[in-house]
Amino acid sequence: MSQRFRTLALIGKYQSPDVAESVMQLAEHLRGRGLEVLVEQGTASSIGMTNGFPMATYDEIGARAHLAVVLGGDGTMLNTARRLAEHEVPLVGVNQGRLGFLTDIAREDAQARLDEILDGQFIAESRFMLDAEVLRAGQRVFQTLALNDVVVNKGDLGRMIEFDVAIDDEFVYTQRSDGMIISTPTGSTAYALSSNGPILHPSVGGIALVPLCPHALTARPVTLPDTCRIDITLLPPHDARVHFDGQARFDARAGDCVRLTRSALQVRLLHPRGYSYFAMLREKLHWSAIPRHP
Amino acid sequence: MSQRFRTLALIGKYQSPDVAESVMQLAEHLRGRGLEVLVEQGTASSIGMTNGFPMATYDEIGARAHLAVVLGGDGTMLNTARRLAEHEVPLVGVNQGRLGFLTDIAREDAQARLDEILDGQFIAESRFMLDAEVLRAGQRVFQTLALNDVVVNKGDLGRMIEFDVAIDDEFVYTQRSDGMIISTPTGSTAYALSSNGPILHPSVGGIALVPLCPHALTARPVTLPDTCRIDITLLPPHDARVHFDGQARFDARAGDCVRLTRSALQVRLLHPRGYSYFAMLREKLHWSAIPRHP
Amino acid sequence: MSQRFRTLALIGKYQSPDVAESVMQLAEHLRGRGLEVLVEQGTASSIGMTNGFPMATYDEIGARAHLAVVLGGDGTMLNTARRLAEHEVPLVGVNQGRLGFLTDIAREDAQARLDEILDGQFIAESRFMLDAEVLRAGQRVFQTLALNDVVVNKGDLGRMIEFDVAIDDEFVYTQRSDGMIISTPTGSTAYALSSNGPILHPSVGGIALVPLCPHALTARPVTLPDTCRIDITLLPPHDARVHFDGQARFDARAGDCVRLTRSALQVRLLHPRGYSYFAMLREKLHWSAIPRHP
Amino acid sequence: MSQRFRTLALIGKYQSPDVAESVMQLAEHLRGRGLEVLVEQGTASSIGMTNGFPMATYDEIGARAHLAVVLGGDGTMLNTARRLAEHEVPLVGVNQGRLGFLTDIAREDAQARLDEILDGQFIAESRFMLDAEVLRAGQRVFQTLALNDVVVNKGDLGRMIEFDVAIDDEFVYTQRSDGMIISTPTGSTAYALSSNGPILHPSVGGIALVPLCPHALTARPVTLPDTCRIDITLLPPHDARVHFDGQARFDARAGDCVRLTRSALQVRLLHPRGYSYFAMLREKLHWSAIPRHP
Repeated sequence: MSQRFRTLALIGKYQSPDVAESVMQLAEHLRGRGLEVLVEQGTASSIGMTNGFPMATYDEIGARAHLAVVLGGDGTMLNTARRLAEHEVPLVGVNQGRLGFLTDIAREDAQARLDEILDGQFIAESRFMLDAEVLRAGQRVFQTLALNDVVVNKGDLGRMIEFDVAIDDEFVYTQRSDGMIISTPTGSTAYALSSNGPILHPSVGGIALVPLCPHALTARPVTLPDTCRIDITLLPPHDARVHFDGQARFDARAGDCVRLTRSALQVRLLHPRGYSYFAMLREKLHWSAIPRHP
Repeated sequence: MSQRFRTLALIGKYQSPDVAESVMQLAEHLRGRGLEVLVEQGTASSIGMTNGFPMATYDEIGARAHLAVVLGGDGTMLNTARRLAEHEVPLVGVNQGRLGFLTDIAREDAQARLDEILDGQFIAESRFMLDAEVLRAGQRVFQTLALNDVVVNKGDLGRMIEFDVAIDDEFVYTQRSDGMIISTPTGSTAYALSSNGPILHPSVGGIALVPLCPHALTARPVTLPDTCRIDITLLPPHDARVHFDGQARFDARAGDCVRLTRSALQVRLLHPRGYSYFAMLREKLHWSAIPRHP
Repeated sequence: MSQRFRTLALIGKYQSPDVAESVMQLAEHLRGRGLEVLVEQGTASSIGMTNGFPMATYDEIGARAHLAVVLGGDGTMLNTARRLAEHEVPLVGVNQGRLGFLTDIAREDAQARLDEILDGQFIAESRFMLDAEVLRAGQRVFQTLALNDVVVNKGDLGRMIEFDVAIDDEFVYTQRSDGMIISTPTGSTAYALSSNGPILHPSVGGIALVPLCPHALTARPVTLPDTCRIDITLLPPHDARVHFDGQARFDARAGDCVRLTRSALQVRLLHPRGYSYFAMLREKLHWSAIPRHP
Repeated sequence: MSQRFRTLALIGKYQSPDVAESVMQLAEHLRGRGLEVLVEQGTASSIGMTNGFPMATYDEIGARAHLAVVLGGDGTMLNTARRLAEHEVPLVGVNQGRLGFLTDIAREDAQARLDEILDGQFIAESRFMLDAEVLRAGQRVFQTLALNDVVVNKGDLGRMIEFDVAIDDEFVYTQRSDGMIISTPTGSTAYALSSNGPILHPSVGGIALVPLCPHALTARPVTLPDTCRIDITLLPPHDARVHFDGQARFDARAGDCVRLTRSALQVRLLHPRGYSYFAMLREKLHWSAIPRHP
């Protein structure tokens, strides 16, 4: 079974020397299983050693690795997912702190869980991403992917912005608010949840529009089918900052249109056996919390 | 094109003599077009006349009609949808008051819009329903359909109830609350919205679980894929009332399990040309409302 | 200092034989300090013994006791507060399970904390109550007190009710909803919180109106000054059930008016030294919970 | 009665030449009543004329005027209130567009309503303000007043901030969020409402803490008595922007403490007779809106 995963890549949290030990231990362990192990270039650089393991860029990882093991938090997973998206390398997430929604293997269990995965004991899951682009006077001026969310946010002045929302070329409404979160099911348990967005199970083919501090009391989150195209056009004189997975950023001008569709690319996650979305939800959202009043 | 719809049924609001004029005018108009017109039995009885049009039970309508025209509000549509569900007769809704989400033709436009629909100018849409059943000691003791929602509600004492939620046989959480709304996309703009449920576009294949006044601050609505099976089991000593589309009702006992799946049956709605879900949403939710503060 | 508290009453959770040991231990301890100890009649009856301590009705306790020690949960405190309200006997709450907002002494600390309180080491706090009455055709047909809240709730049919809200004789709005919670600051962390009501610090002189599943998206909780008179009048054909502290209940008819004002009576709570409202809030609402995503 | 108000000041919307006509008409009208009329300096400058009316700075207005008439929106009222606060000149608001919460006289009714007010027919109301200061290493580095709210907001990077909240020197909680709104009752119907803050009647002596997109699902708005001191301390490495009434702004650094107390200064508003807070609320929040579903 491990013939399926002959070359593995290890990717550590961005600029975090403290993942060095975890990365190297895992690398040695995998080499001991006779596998080829690549260490992501930036990771190698920040941990300051490679112990003879070859370094590789994301593109090289994409071209060669059969599996990428991410050691960090959900932020590291988001970044890796976006960078490897077009290569469709399956991802495994090993958390360095507390468990994340995407990094569901604890550091101390990493070797055991990974051995099981290499032996074919895993739960595979696909998550869709958003294709995001910014149009200015009809021309694309920015493009990227997002696995969690795209956030259109008021600018530096701190005043509410106004924008039109259109779905599949149909005007839907003009909104005045601090901004808008456009979230995938994966992102629905992240920032969108802080703004009263709906939790969408990863198998739901929906995209949530979640207003940020909307002016109108009647504004509500809406979940759209993932087949639609969403256009958010900034009404002059409002400009906005647009964040993608909380990582990439674009400063949009008045009149710019942020356009979102479901990407043809998907992220393939491998979870350890026994993985349960609901168990994760329960733990992260404290659903086992003791009731509050008698 | 009207060969498609040769036999039509007219169904009026339950026990509402005041729809008599609308029903008879429409019946005459359709007869004038050479169509066969059936008047639903209860409707005929409550309006006290039929002017020679044959009466028909829901089952007869289901067997014979190519189209059912509902004159009433969304409640009448819900009732009709559930009664005709297995026959898959397409439905058209003519509102007798203000427009509803399901009854999207105004009374004064009924003849003109209906002519267009008979001429083939319409937008067809399918809405899924929920199969709901109540299990007691493993035996089914109740079964029905719901187009909008199933509401499990605290009983007469006014105290919170406790129940387990399981998805596809996996325990998800125990909740203490006033109850739970299980809503289709169609129902997401009805009662569920009053309890901060998410608006789901009719094309989203999702079912929303919306807690009613949950005890725990961390409880949140969750949208599940419409392929899953949802079990809500009342923990002793709690009993509950279960409402289906706000119409049928079942008194569940402690230990009973309310089981919900997507029904194989669908409701087929015919909207007039120019229909827009978003326009309806905008109007019903007052999204064109003037912003609130300067 | 203990001259201030020469006669104490012990009141146990309603019909709960399991508080027997706690009650008797505390009674013996207090007798050992030379104090007179009364055991509430119902408590004595449900624990089945008094070991020679005199039994007393609530009225006798009100007339004679300088301090009432409540052994139970917040529900027991609410009940005691309402029954002793006119006597203004200070209350101390000893919780038999997990700490409550009102029962802030743990059972195992009861003797030590109570000794300190008897020695004058306590934090005294007044909480206001609501005077609630129901008027039918202008005549009072029911009257009671509430320390937490008054809940006007839809009746048995499960349909939304409609009612007018007037403040100091001025019409404010007509609401269609499942009902309305009228909450004191004390009640603001109880049921009202489940319905998105505001948390009001006990020192805020406010009364919160919290809609239950309101039909209109623009409905919001409103906090009124505690000097105002609130009238909630049921619009025909709607009747409703009215709950007071989740304990007393009145079945109101269409046309009935539920009238609420701040009572002249107050509840006097004695907290152990070191008591902190915010610490209690933090613990009960899990505010120390670990953040949710990275 | 008009002896009470012998000198009036007219203050127009900031840099808005279009209030010229309203200002001049009102000035002439008041001169015709034999009153002294001052035109605020910036207003005179932006409308480009004074027709012989003396210009005055805010300080001169504060020293000499018995009444200030503000022509603009709520933003103009907020600005005027803060600038004239220490002089306690009563304010009247004439809205130039749709009515505001603070500018409750319509432009076309301005002369008639003002005549009535000058004749003593008005409803006077006091609104409290917040004293806001920023402390850096124990030293005050900024100070201002706010009638609506103080908003501590995440900085330019768009990432959540972390801060400690202390009330009267007691630590309450650490919050991770987009920021915090600290709102007076006056501000409770403005920005705070967009973030699910509670509506506080102007007579409630409370200050609301309203989290902005809090990370923890258990975060809730809390209303504190207006006698307390609120300290919000930015935890390194987080800096923040602090907005006061959406007008003044201060860029706070990690470690800075934003300290808020109720100001000894109050704003005195004169409303036209017939004014009703609830009527205003009903209109602004669309509480007369027709119910949404049948």
